[in-house]
Amino acid sequence: MKKTIDYIRANRERFVEELFGVLRIPSISAESRHKDDMVRCAQWLAESLLKAGADMAEVMPTEGNPVVYAQKIVDPAKPTVLVYGHYDVMPVDPVDLWHTAPFEPVIKEGRIWGRGANDDKGQSFMHVKAFEAMTATGELPCNVKFMIEGEEEIGSEHLGTWCSEHKEMLAADVILVSDTSLLAWDTPSITCGLRGLCYMEVEVTGPDKDLHSGLYGGAVANPANVLARLIASLVDENGHITIPHFYDRVRELTPAERKDFNKAPFSLERYKDALSIGEVEGEAGYTTMERTGVRPSLDVNGIWGGYTGEGTKTVIPSKACAKISMRLVPDQSFEEIARLFTAHFEAIAPPSVKVNVKTLHGGEPYVSPTDLPAYRAAAQAIEDTFGKTPLPFYSGGSIPIISTFEKVLGLKSILMGFGLDRDAIHSPNESYGLENFYRGIETIAWFYKYFAQLR
Amino acid sequence: MKKTIDYIRANRERFVEELFGVLRIPSISAESRHKDDMVRCAQWLAESLLKAGADMAEVMPTEGNPVVYAQKIVDPAKPTVLVYGHYDVMPVDPVDLWHTAPFEPVIKEGRIWGRGANDDKGQSFMHVKAFEAMTATGELPCNVKFMIEGEEEIGSEHLGTWCSEHKEMLAADVILVSDTSLLAWDTPSITCGLRGLCYMEVEVTGPDKDLHSGLYGGAVANPANVLARLIASLVDENGHITIPHFYDRVRELTPAERKDFNKAPFSLERYKDALSIGEVEGEAGYTTMERTGVRPSLDVNGIWGGYTGEGTKTVIPSKACAKISMRLVPDQSFEEIARLFTAHFEAIAPPSVKVNVKTLHGGEPYVSPTDLPAYRAAAQAIEDTFGKTPLPFYSGGSIPIISTFEKVLGLKSILMGFGLDRDAIHSPNESYGLENFYRGIETIAWFYKYFAQLR
Repeated sequence: MKKTIDYIRANRERFVEELFGVLRIPSISAESRHKDDMVRCAQWLAESLLKAGADMAEVMPTEGNPVVYAQKIVDPAKPTVLVYGHYDVMPVDPVDLWHTAPFEPVIKEGRIWGRGANDDKGQSFMHVKAFEAMTATGELPCNVKFMIEGEEEIGSEHLGTWCSEHKEMLAADVILVSDTSLLAWDTPSITCGLRGLCYMEVEVTGPDKDLHSGLYGGAVANPANVLARLIASLVDENGHITIPHFYDRVRELTPAERKDFNKAPFSLERYKDALSIGEVEGEAGYTTMERTGVRPSLDVNGIWGGYTGEGTKTVIPSKACAKISMRLVPDQSFEEIARLFTAHFEAIAPPSVKVNVKTLHGGEPYVSPTDLPAYRAAAQAIEDTFGKTPLPFYSGGSIPIISTFEKVLGLKSILMGFGLDRDAIHSPNESYGLENFYRGIETIAWFYKYFAQLR
Repeated sequence: MKKTIDYIRANRERFVEELFGVLRIPSISAESRHKDDMVRCAQWLAESLLKAGADMAEVMPTEGNPVVYAQKIVDPAKPTVLVYGHYDVMPVDPVDLWHTAPFEPVIKEGRIWGRGANDDKGQSFMHVKAFEAMTATGELPCNVKFMIEGEEEIGSEHLGTWCSEHKEMLAADVILVSDTSLLAWDTPSITCGLRGLCYMEVEVTGPDKDLHSGLYGGAVANPANVLARLIASLVDENGHITIPHFYDRVRELTPAERKDFNKAPFSLERYKDALSIGEVEGEAGYTTMERTGVRPSLDVNGIWGGYTGEGTKTVIPSKACAKISMRLVPDQSFEEIARLFTAHFEAIAPPSVKVNVKTLHGGEPYVSPTDLPAYRAAAQAIEDTFGKTPLPFYSGGSIPIISTFEKVLGLKSILMGFGLDRDAIHSPNESYGLENFYRGIETIAWFYKYFAQLR
């Protein structure tokens, strides 16, 4: 491995420069005006995979954004790792909160700043570069396949179908993913659990046009007030979600599991300070770690209605809307929860309004056991580069496609991500530490080595 | 009066053409980028008042938008009518719902379409034209003063001060205003009561940046969820506003007054049909007429927070905001209600968020007795032109400055407006009937005649 590690260290600066190339492409999957940028971004990645030493790399169409597929088969008898990542990024609003332009990456304070610096262009690109290093030095000990998609941030709608259409091509022993965070730089971790997601949009319509709030106020249901009422009623004063049967399939931890789960170092004071909040808030009877790791949640991700400009407008809006998403835990199922939510929301709407509920996207929760060879390979790799055994971690986040991979391809995924909370993914001023980027590349290389041995 | 009425009828088309000139100026007072349009609009009106026969007309500065003042003194011994109107208009969003451009007036289906067609450029301009007709024909029986301001839609912030600085100039016997509606074309009315207004803006801040709803969802208070909860709690299940002491000064109608009040023709079915709503909603124990006429109300006029674009973004917003206004009835006071609202909203905010409450504007409720000579003159004028005695009407709307006039100038106002519900003021596709415009001008002329006699 000496050659590989030397190669990585000798080429670090170039790797970052190359990463900037892909960070400059505004591949926001949620906004249809970026359709061309998605294709441009996929082509960029395919070319960089070819240059990195892939036998072939292709931009493969789906009904949505294309998937970048590449592979290098060193020996069909050897194990195969399928790397998954995504080249699409989150929207950048509110854009005026960014200190630097989101798609003009810069290095400042030892960090790469820009949308996608971490999630997931930065993390995906570490894989391209680890692969390049091992290929260039002749030290690649197994076969590698890459599958980098462009719809992760909008629910990976077309990737499941694409996978089932290309099962043979995608045959592998494990999927390796870097799209998660470490508990802390000095507390490395491997993500073993992911929450599922059920993302809904609701529209409440009252009168068929905006009304003057003086002439009608008090006599006509105001959709914005009604929406507030309906949303408020979805979570009770104990932080419990009130949708009937919502908790039916939630797996409760045993006391022993809860004890284990709360072992990871956590300071509530530091947590509150980092977010500048006076108090946390969540489901009664659970710790903060449990609330995000193993309990479901319900959040308004966006709400709008009426006059939101400068000054005043005395209007009763005709409509008010909200995007509401729920995080799910084993064994909740996204489609069932979408049905329960829809039925409940329609049931609680008063006769003074009409409601329209849409399911925008979703994915199932996921758990991966810690006794898999690939988990042990990842743990060993992290121990080598961080000097510490990683903790298994149950993340509150969702990568909806991971459970689909298991269902469609029959493969478990190892979630070995190198982000940190401070990276502000999905927020203005996303960044990624240069150290994370460099150490991630080395850790991935070690993973290949151990995985090829252990298996 | 024959000469005046003939003059009006002979010049109708020209009056409408001239009105189009002022409708084309986008004098939206809520949007600061229209600052120059406000001045342009005021100058336009001053010129048209001079042309109509005023002795003088001036654009007078305030700390906000200027006031147009004009006068014609036919004889200092004769009574004086002070006409009040406003040249500022409401914002036009959502602009894509307009069928024609808001500031390019057109005539269609016997109506004038465009922002301000009724409120209040159309209605104010009727006064200019009635004045022109009586001046041109030598039939003006009293002195007339005009005071047309540019900040009515944003709370007439500077007009009170301006009035107190120009008391002598403004000396009059009554104020005449056309900025209200008729109950119906076949049920003419004069507005005797106006609700007050207290317009607030609230901001709820949770974490100091947007957060990933997966990583934090369930553990951190989401400002949008909290805002929904707080708003929902402001009105209880009986439609009662929950702010402590909110109703302390609300004057309850006597059973006899309630009976009188509900005499005006009203069909709940037609009301619901006109708005395409399945059910009305309001304070338990009151009729729809009472709910808007003599009871206070609380409405969300705008709400926003988080991601409101296309598709999905899994974010916990850092902030969520709402514009919330309350309509007030005698003897509630706007400043007291603003204080009560602020104290209550701050008190109910949980420790997991910070709230910021701002008072945007307000005005006191107003009542005018029906035994004033000016009321009788207005009633007689309407009887002449509509063939029916007008009903006294308690409107749900607010013209905050009207109570200020009483306080500062010691003058009652006669609210003789000619709008109709269908005019969609404050909404997309505002319009004003040509018939309303023409008949309004004649009615105003008759008002002068009777007022000069009766007084």
